Amino acid sequence: MAAPELEHLIALLAKLPALGPRSARRAVLSLLGQKETQFAPLVAAMQTVLEKVKTCPVCGNLDTIVPCSVCQDSTRVRHQFCVVQDVADLWAIERTGVFKGQYHVLGGLLSALDGIGPDELNIQSLLEKVDATENCEVIFALPATVEGQTTTHYLSDRLANFPCSVSALSRGVPIGGELDYLDDGTLQMAFKARRNL
Amino acid sequence: MAAPELEHLIALLAKLPALGPRSARRAVLSLLGQKETQFAPLVAAMQTVLEKVKTCPVCGNLDTIVPCSVCQDSTRVRHQFCVVQDVADLWAIERTGVFKGQYHVLGGLLSALDGIGPDELNIQSLLEKVDATENCEVIFALPATVEGQTTTHYLSDRLANFPCSVSALSRGVPIGGELDYLDDGTLQMAFKARRNL
Repeated sequence: MAAPELEHLIALLAKLPALGPRSARRAVLSLLGQKETQFAPLVAAMQTVLEKVKTCPVCGNLDTIVPCSVCQDSTRVRHQFCVVQDVADLWAIERTGVFKGQYHVLGGLLSALDGIGPDELNIQSLLEKVDATENCEVIFALPATVEGQTTTHYLSDRLANFPCSVSALSRGVPIGGELDYLDDGTLQMAFKARRNL
Repeated sequence: MAAPELEHLIALLAKLPALGPRSARRAVLSLLGQKETQFAPLVAAMQTVLEKVKTCPVCGNLDTIVPCSVCQDSTRVRHQFCVVQDVADLWAIERTGVFKGQYHVLGGLLSALDGIGPDELNIQSLLEKVDATENCEVIFALPATVEGQTTTHYLSDRLANFPCSVSALSRGVPIGGELDYLDDGTLQMAFKARRNL
């Protein structure tokens, strides 16, 4: 029975992936308890991001500059393309610092269940980029799920006629992983894909 | 390695009670994926709440009007005061519709551990309201924790010299509660406080 403006805000916040109605209410009350130090800066930051952040037309990353800072970075290798599902995965790889090439955000994965076919993903622009790049190397960094593997297979088929090398992230036991706690599928695959020392 | 504006927003969102860095990042990406339908309305709703919602000087509720809609409601009983810890608890009681009197938000509970003494809580204004009201009835709706019980005891002591009746929410087995799954303290207390049928 809060004011309609409050109920409206709580309803909108409750739509966010990590929040429900109860935690949205707690969040709003916490913000109202610290208007100057938390609420006002948060609203200002959201306003800025809403206005300034754009999708990079080259790779699909989100940034305040166009093309994005990764695409504009002249120190990065131009002939390597890392294909990711979404921007969160791009940022995750950037945090590791392991990759110094270009990205390509697909915007999803092929999924018959969700009705997502090749036309719903950014595939055409990937093929064009690969076609225009010499000694091109494509690295698939897609999730180790059925949809991720289907998409990797589909795209490597599409790339078969291009003069580029294609690879994918290795699958296996994660660092610190106890074999006893690992799911059977991962253990089986890590066994089959064992490497010589 | 997102843009500084994005990292700033994620850091601010991650301070909310229900969110951490990872879920804040997911929330921001989800919002950026639906700028027109979700992000812009959310920013507008936050702006409105930030500007319009004030703490009611009479009871401590949060509302867009001053005094709040509960205090202004002429159909509500004037001589009953329900003492709650915070606004979330006030809203919870309002949702049940069981209470049709006035509220008083303490703004916390007495806690030696957290250094919260009587001076940190809205106690003086409660005493003044009780003093100014005939046939006054005070209902303590504080949590069934050590701090909640301490606060209830302290306040009922302070109210001992006022001509008002004092009560507190009953404690016992919650509706639908299986005895086997209940903690020992609740079961013990429900047993001792058994009522004649």
